[in-house]
Amino acid sequence: MSRFFTSKYSNLIPYTPGEQPKDRKFVKLNTNESPFATPECAVEAAKAAAENAQLYSDPECTYFRQALARRFDVDYDMTIAVNGSDEILNFAFMAFCDDNCPALFPDISYGFYPVFANLSHIPYKTFPLREDFTVDIEPYKNTWGTVVIANPTAPTGIALSLEEIEEIVASNPDRVVIVDEAYVDFGTQSAVPLVKKYSNLLVTQTFSKSRSMAGARLGFGIAQKELIADLNTLRYSTNPYNVNSLTLAMGKAVLENDEITAERCQVIADNREWTKGELARLGFTFTPSKANFIFARHPEISGGDIYTRLREKGVLVRHFTAERICEYNRITVGSREQMETLIKALEEILEEK
Amino acid sequence: MSRFFTSKYSNLIPYTPGEQPKDRKFVKLNTNESPFATPECAVEAAKAAAENAQLYSDPECTYFRQALARRFDVDYDMTIAVNGSDEILNFAFMAFCDDNCPALFPDISYGFYPVFANLSHIPYKTFPLREDFTVDIEPYKNTWGTVVIANPTAPTGIALSLEEIEEIVASNPDRVVIVDEAYVDFGTQSAVPLVKKYSNLLVTQTFSKSRSMAGARLGFGIAQKELIADLNTLRYSTNPYNVNSLTLAMGKAVLENDEITAERCQVIADNREWTKGELARLGFTFTPSKANFIFARHPEISGGDIYTRLREKGVLVRHFTAERICEYNRITVGSREQMETLIKALEEILEEK
Repeated sequence: MSRFFTSKYSNLIPYTPGEQPKDRKFVKLNTNESPFATPECAVEAAKAAAENAQLYSDPECTYFRQALARRFDVDYDMTIAVNGSDEILNFAFMAFCDDNCPALFPDISYGFYPVFANLSHIPYKTFPLREDFTVDIEPYKNTWGTVVIANPTAPTGIALSLEEIEEIVASNPDRVVIVDEAYVDFGTQSAVPLVKKYSNLLVTQTFSKSRSMAGARLGFGIAQKELIADLNTLRYSTNPYNVNSLTLAMGKAVLENDEITAERCQVIADNREWTKGELARLGFTFTPSKANFIFARHPEISGGDIYTRLREKGVLVRHFTAERICEYNRITVGSREQMETLIKALEEILEEK
Repeated sequence: MSRFFTSKYSNLIPYTPGEQPKDRKFVKLNTNESPFATPECAVEAAKAAAENAQLYSDPECTYFRQALARRFDVDYDMTIAVNGSDEILNFAFMAFCDDNCPALFPDISYGFYPVFANLSHIPYKTFPLREDFTVDIEPYKNTWGTVVIANPTAPTGIALSLEEIEEIVASNPDRVVIVDEAYVDFGTQSAVPLVKKYSNLLVTQTFSKSRSMAGARLGFGIAQKELIADLNTLRYSTNPYNVNSLTLAMGKAVLENDEITAERCQVIADNREWTKGELARLGFTFTPSKANFIFARHPEISGGDIYTRLREKGVLVRHFTAERICEYNRITVGSREQMETLIKALEEILEEK
């Protein structure tokens, strides 16, 4: 920290993203990326856009948002494009939380939520997950703050039903409910169809997971147009050209060929269930994940040890040190081959112990 | 605005970016883009990166920053990559201004500065440019706030000398000086070489103008590592993967072939001087711009009229309505052919009047 840094942020603890190894080749199961290559239609679209990148991107993201509106059966002005869904989550914390309206979220969830709150000096309150890591929705009903729910949630992968989400939304007509659906495509029902009915619902999604575009940075939000307008006030006051033209073209192309996303998600879901079976065979326990990751622990080896020993064997998973979850590792579900490598490495670790 | 929007931002007036026409073909001289296509090396790099975009971009932007450090002869930890230089300007306002340290900048400058200040509830004070639009540096010396100077400045294109910039920096050892060099490559001396000497200097640049990459969104900052660390605290608390992997690859490729940038800037400078001659012949007056735009007025036709009539003829320039500058238009310097079209259109307008 320099001596010039404002005291407003001097205590801010930034988010720590998962490791992106540069030199060593790992079986990379630590940041929930897709094992599938970026769709060919997106690569083609990127090439074409790159040749014309001397011109600014469209700040309205018109063509991409038109494709979004068609794909999700909503009006154009119910959509917003962002530079990865972290960006819209930050805007949503800024727009819909303040001293009179704290952010409310589970004690174990996406680790960026408290960072967004601290960045904007927004008070927040967390409610503990149940012992089995499921979300008790009661504290989020008829409440006094802005509710932020990842569904399915990270890092457990456990999902709420659409009925439970609607209960939360319907019970808070005067508060915004943000449903972060980064992992929705792997087996959870989306809340997007509720947006037309509820003026207080914002649904956010990303192209980083199910659509194999983490490196291109593309997220979006769907809500009634008044909420979208609020988010745009912040977007146009921060970085109006927030999404680059290559990425916008890629996103549009993928949405127009979105059957590939469903096919790929089915493969991941199959691999997830296969891996769960293998993990159970090895004595692991895990949450009933509906996401493209498994949150697993072993009764005889600590979470930290498993992380370290997998890393030594060239398999990278994500380990969190927070008290309730430090015995677990979050393992991305990749290709069947990657999962076989993982299971083999775990077998070796169990034999060596 | 929705009824949920926090009162913190309810009075915020966002920045208005220049028009990005979608349907009609214009001679586009309104947002200071490059008339040259994105360099072929960058297009090739984008293609390769697109094929691997299923993996997150490197949050440290390592390879791009290594290329930056080599190109600008600074240490690696004196560099930061951002999603367009608007992003780093916003971070810099957040990091180095607060109630005790207002932002200080000219009354006529980049229109985003007051928006950044208002977004973060930072007080700011403007000092008027002289009658001829040159910057009087005296108010920025030995001062009590964070100085923000575009050099050359927008929308006039007038540059301060490196000696004047150093006077400002040297006289404010306890305040940060931000030098926004978006247009530096078209004929102004950069302050980057001063960074090693002054711990309070942040220089920001962009790939949007001289490097033909506006649509790819890439900016950067150079400062001593402590200032860079402050900016990274905010970056990692906002959007750690702020720059996508395609753009990082493009930026690295362009830096490694940066002789093309110098060649292109020379062509633009030549076209600028040719256009100035033609404008003078038609009775226009203009500021001594060192940027890739000319800020011009005509004694007999209002700035708004010229804007409207050029638009009717398919030539798009930028018109601002602020009092001191409303008789001017900011005209991007493009290719010689574009400049000839502009001059022909202006000749017609003068004949028609």
